[in-house]
Amino acid sequence: MASDVFVLLKTYNNSTKVDLTHDLSAQRAAVDRVLSAFRSICGPDGVSLGEAVREQHGKDESVHKCRPPDVVVFPRCVEEVSALAKVCHDHNLPIIPFGTGTGLEGGVGAVKGGVCFSLRNMDQVLDLHPEDFDVTVEPGVTRKALNAYLRDTGLWFPVDPGADASLCGMAATSASGTNAVRYGTMRENTLNLEVVLSDGRIIHTAGKGRRPRKTSAGYNLTNLFVGSEGTLGIITKTTLRLYGIPEAMVSAVCSFPSIQAAVDSTVQILQAGVPIARIGEEEREKLKIICDFKNSCENHDAYSTDVCVPLSRLPQIIVETKEDLLESRLTGPIAGHVGDGNFHCLMVVDPNDPDEQHRVHLFAERLARRALAMGGTCTGEHGVGLGKRVLLQEEVGPLAIQVMQGLKETLDPKNLMNPGKILLGLKGKRLFLGV
Amino acid sequence: MASDVFVLLKTYNNSTKVDLTHDLSAQRAAVDRVLSAFRSICGPDGVSLGEAVREQHGKDESVHKCRPPDVVVFPRCVEEVSALAKVCHDHNLPIIPFGTGTGLEGGVGAVKGGVCFSLRNMDQVLDLHPEDFDVTVEPGVTRKALNAYLRDTGLWFPVDPGADASLCGMAATSASGTNAVRYGTMRENTLNLEVVLSDGRIIHTAGKGRRPRKTSAGYNLTNLFVGSEGTLGIITKTTLRLYGIPEAMVSAVCSFPSIQAAVDSTVQILQAGVPIARIGEEEREKLKIICDFKNSCENHDAYSTDVCVPLSRLPQIIVETKEDLLESRLTGPIAGHVGDGNFHCLMVVDPNDPDEQHRVHLFAERLARRALAMGGTCTGEHGVGLGKRVLLQEEVGPLAIQVMQGLKETLDPKNLMNPGKILLGLKGKRLFLGV
Ligand SMILES: Cc1cc2nc3c(=O)[nH]c(=O)nc-3n(C[C@H](O)[C@H](O)[C@H](O)COP(=O)(O)OP(=O)(O)OC[C@H]3O[C@@H](n4cnc5c(N)ncnc54)[C@H](O)[C@@H]3O)c2cc1C
Ligand SMILES: Cc1cc2nc3c(=O)[nH]c(=O)nc-3n(C[C@H](O)[C@H](O)[C@H](O)COP(=O)(O)OP(=O)(O)OC[C@H]3O[C@@H](n4cnc5c(N)ncnc54)[C@H](O)[C@@H]3O)c2cc1C
Repeated sequence: MASDVFVLLKTYNNSTKVDLTHDLSAQRAAVDRVLSAFRSICGPDGVSLGEAVREQHGKDESVHKCRPPDVVVFPRCVEEVSALAKVCHDHNLPIIPFGTGTGLEGGVGAVKGGVCFSLRNMDQVLDLHPEDFDVTVEPGVTRKALNAYLRDTGLWFPVDPGADASLCGMAATSASGTNAVRYGTMRENTLNLEVVLSDGRIIHTAGKGRRPRKTSAGYNLTNLFVGSEGTLGIITKTTLRLYGIPEAMVSAVCSFPSIQAAVDSTVQILQAGVPIARIGEEEREKLKIICDFKNSCENHDAYSTDVCVPLSRLPQIIVETKEDLLESRLTGPIAGHVGDGNFHCLMVVDPNDPDEQHRVHLFAERLARRALAMGGTCTGEHGVGLGKRVLLQEEVGPLAIQVMQGLKETLDPKNLMNPGKILLGLKGKRLFLGV
Repeated sequence: MASDVFVLLKTYNNSTKVDLTHDLSAQRAAVDRVLSAFRSICGPDGVSLGEAVREQHGKDESVHKCRPPDVVVFPRCVEEVSALAKVCHDHNLPIIPFGTGTGLEGGVGAVKGGVCFSLRNMDQVLDLHPEDFDVTVEPGVTRKALNAYLRDTGLWFPVDPGADASLCGMAATSASGTNAVRYGTMRENTLNLEVVLSDGRIIHTAGKGRRPRKTSAGYNLTNLFVGSEGTLGIITKTTLRLYGIPEAMVSAVCSFPSIQAAVDSTVQILQAGVPIARIGEEEREKLKIICDFKNSCENHDAYSTDVCVPLSRLPQIIVETKEDLLESRLTGPIAGHVGDGNFHCLMVVDPNDPDEQHRVHLFAERLARRALAMGGTCTGEHGVGLGKRVLLQEEVGPLAIQVMQGLKETLDPKNLMNPGKILLGLKGKRLFLGV
């Protein structure tokens, strides 16, 4: 265990305030002080240095390799999250929030070491207001747990990324899924967030306890944190819109002679203003196949691309993608949210075949650039994480990147919140010089 | 005219770089340099110092008194907006964007003097993609002009604030209106913005030319600028979602024995998942009455409150508001978007009756605080502008205000963009101290 402990502060020791001379006993004393501060906050069971626990928390469902944190903490309430963050802030330790680890972009990897905040012990559904169509949940509550809780109310939360993700993690990645055409994504369905900032202060993006369905009150802080992938703060509560379960739900599975025909029909349906919840291609079934497949051959990783293009470009990009798959000697069933222009190539990658990994990587980059050339995005719903930081730069351009860096510096000047994600380093030019 | 010219730089002279000694001729020369720079950018007809033009641009449709800018410029393209902004930035002159002046919170008043950017000459509909359900418009294009342009396509843009506002102005105020229950507000319907920052640089919030219907690519800059009321930059293009005009639209006007009964029915309709575009109370008709009334008695101002509360609190707040109106000896028909919990008291105020003005002011503050106490907001759709800056502080709390100030400083470090709006001065505590 001693060796584990040492890792903790070594990782970030360039900027740490505790005295890191070569005096090992001083270093050990500093580490002990941090760990005992953690233990006094969330109890001895709330702090884990065990290798298995750290490994579990260093990896999501993506191909990105495991980057275990130095220690995992399990706070039980927002006050504990806040107190833990304050200790990290005082000692310049990175903070990596962890929901359920179903992310697909390597978001939870501790690339700079640090402290993983596993939020699963905060699993209460709070403040259900059926008559107002809203609910507030803690970060350990998953989508399925919430819908089970709502069963008798006639209400549901429709945003559905397939995986049983935590709702705060879904807010953190701006998730959506199959029902987005009708109900929108996490951006449209999050009314308020409680967030612990890097120094432990607690902010309510729309004001404490507020839950109006509509607001024009100042800058939209809620949607600044939605999609921020743990890089701006730790989401400790999210207030969500709920919906009545539709009384009549007609489900139709259609076969089309071509992708063009499928897209044409979608456009006609949208044009007619018919309320549509999901226009997919049985993608959940396909995802299930992939997951099952992945589980059955333990040695394989699943990789999912995530581009999104304007509707009318779907046929062309899908045709080109199929050709590219063939030429790259890769298989990857295509599953799409046709109504959004968002689709995934679901690929199973042998981690012991570096040549295949390389081909998958090049294929995914070509696909993303194809989407960008069509006015689309490299990520419709999975986020940027580790793997799409360069693509993000190409997508939004240098000035937008500088603005994002400016926002990051404003909210997390020490770069402690999930460092190394979304933005490629923060040593960029300042947004405004010499002001 | 000379006296007009003098005002221009006097207003902001504390921080201006041009040499403002008491030497009048030096001052006049500096002003002349600025004005001739403006004229060389947007032509002699594109710069106005005339009193009538300045007065027109110093006031919106609210009770806030006219605060004319020192000069009004009429750029014809984004390059001109950019060049003009650069001149303002170099000389520390405030920039106030002006759409159509239909705002209700005093947003266009030049409270610190400066340069009004009237955007009406940029009135092109660009890049209509009917098959992708999106369109890009310049800031002079109004909602009605866009829908007239779309007439033959079977598509429409449904966000409807009643007034024929510019679409970029609607983005700037995060406007919504009667169709929000079904179609959402400007927050949900803006895909991308082109924005000129205070120093003239041009940013595309989702990347240049991008228009995916869904994205998780980095921080949500689009929704940072939506609702920023001209305080973070000048919106020069907005890319909007379009919708098919519903083939069947059933419209029903219902009378209810009580407000409670009206709200109960609304809740039941929402619970059943019936797609509903608007649940109002003939509010447009009422607004029209007010406007007509206002036009007929030229000496009166119209004032509209704008609180929004969780649905179930509507009956109570409306009952209390009616009592308060009576006790305050005021009349103000109540018009609401019941489906959102947003409602307005439409009041006609005699600007020559200071006692009435005072009673209206106190009434509106009590109403806003009543909404806050119920978990609601002081502004559902009109924005903060000048009049709700103190209420905004109460609504979101000091830390959220500090974050907003931090964002403002990041994007506009000289505080030139529409200064004095949304935030009450920027001399607050820094968000992070000593980092
Ligand atoms: C089979 C499968 C199918 C999927 N299909 C879809 C789909 O269709 N659509 C879709 O959108 N996604 C999909 N996903 C991706 C995944 O479900 C989402 O990214 C999910 O939103 C992540 O939630 P989580 O709780 O698992 O987050 P994690 O994986 O734990 O974390 C993801 C990121 O969010 C941060 N984070 C997590 N919780 C918090 C918090 N409380 N505060 C701050 N930051 C936090 C983490 O630091 C990390 O950067 C799929 C995943 C799988 C495995
Ligand atoms: C009778 C009536 C009824 C109304 N009903 C509603 C309603 O139901 N719902 C609703 O939401 N609103 C309503 N409004 C308010 C009004 O229509 C909105 O605020 C509108 O969105 C403002 O658009 P505008 O172009 O007129 O902006 P302006 O009034 O010109 O400006 C408003 C603010 O936005 C800024 N701004 C304008 N254009 C830009 C730009 N291009 N870039 C950056 N900043 C800019 C200005 O600086 C100012 O701060 C109503 C108004 C009237 C008169």
